[in-house]
Amino acid sequence: MKSHRKELWFELPGRRGFVNITPDVEQALAESGIEEGLCLVNAMHITASVFINDDERGLLADYERWLEQLAPHEPLTRYDHNKTGEDNGDAHHKRQIMGREVVVAVTAGRLDFGPWERIFYGEFDGGRKKRVLVKLIGE
Amino acid sequence: MKSHRKELWFELPGRRGFVNITPDVEQALAESGIEEGLCLVNAMHITASVFINDDERGLLADYERWLEQLAPHEPLTRYDHNKTGEDNGDAHHKRQIMGREVVVAVTAGRLDFGPWERIFYGEFDGGRKKRVLVKLIGE
Amino acid sequence: MKSHRKELWFELPGRRGFVNITPDVEQALAESGIEEGLCLVNAMHITASVFINDDERGLLADYERWLEQLAPHEPLTRYDHNKTGEDNGDAHHKRQIMGREVVVAVTAGRLDFGPWERIFYGEFDGGRKKRVLVKLIGE
Repeated sequence: MKSHRKELWFELPGRRGFVNITPDVEQALAESGIEEGLCLVNAMHITASVFINDDERGLLADYERWLEQLAPHEPLTRYDHNKTGEDNGDAHHKRQIMGREVVVAVTAGRLDFGPWERIFYGEFDGGRKKRVLVKLIGE
Repeated sequence: MKSHRKELWFELPGRRGFVNITPDVEQALAESGIEEGLCLVNAMHITASVFINDDERGLLADYERWLEQLAPHEPLTRYDHNKTGEDNGDAHHKRQIMGREVVVAVTAGRLDFGPWERIFYGEFDGGRKKRVLVKLIGE
Repeated sequence: MKSHRKELWFELPGRRGFVNITPDVEQALAESGIEEGLCLVNAMHITASVFINDDERGLLADYERWLEQLAPHEPLTRYDHNKTGEDNGDAHHKRQIMGREVVVAVTAGRLDFGPWERIFYGEFDGGRKKRVLVKLIGE
């Protein structure tokens, strides 16, 4: 069994944003030499997500608005978590909706994707350096 | 390490619906000959889900109503994504709530399930052919 | 390829609660002898979750309130599922928001975590014995 590990680093300027990281994951897969297996991609931070959906600008704007409705950033007093001195209570909730991780099949050395599947990093508490982990196992 | 790949195809007549695909996944597992490992089951489309819950008709009706409250299909103008000419903006949101994939343990050649766990395909933009991927790795 | 399986058992006194199970998963990993691989941790019940977030009391209280807003326990008649005689329709919904499972990378014999990642069992229909499955594969 082979395994391969790679960290992807991000520093988004604003509080929130989405980044298509599919090419980075494909590169990690190429480095691994794995032909058949599984590829885990997860946020290493608890105020960020990794998810799979469509790379369409309107949709990403829709997600932004919808997540803000489901878990508004303000008022900060909405969240007990913010009593710790943080202002990111909402980010911990948005991340639960969008998810921590994806697991993608590797077949014949490629990410085994449907036609529109793309991997995204979802940032909900940006302005600092944060990481995504790519872990591949297989043969 | 062994691996096995199988696609399951669906064409649900209506816009939305749920299908218990546990027997199909069990069959893919039997074909694989794998005794110990992991089984990934994921929607290959970004307006559909794979999830695990109870095969109880009332619950599935509850999910349908709840998802429509959280991300209504109409008005279509609610979603920037629909400016592309699509009418499935809601489906991309419903899918995030229910999830893209499940990973199931394989133990002694069986899906290692609690008593009520069943795998479902959740369709949120039906009326056309769509796929689920089953990928097994193990020994 | 090695594999290891362990069940964790819980009986929470109230209807709902969160338990940090990271030490239990670390112990299962140590027992496995696996250095490189993947660790699946999933609820075996469909009214419970396994998720990764911060072990901060305020945040867990926020989740409790937020989930009750998104899928209230009462009125029981809100859920067709409760016509079966159950009163846990809400629990099946809360579990979908928080998720069934996590997959964690194993690197150099450790859970490959960011600084604040902790694994939680989320109970939404307690007062009885329930299980979590830990399944490890790797080398």
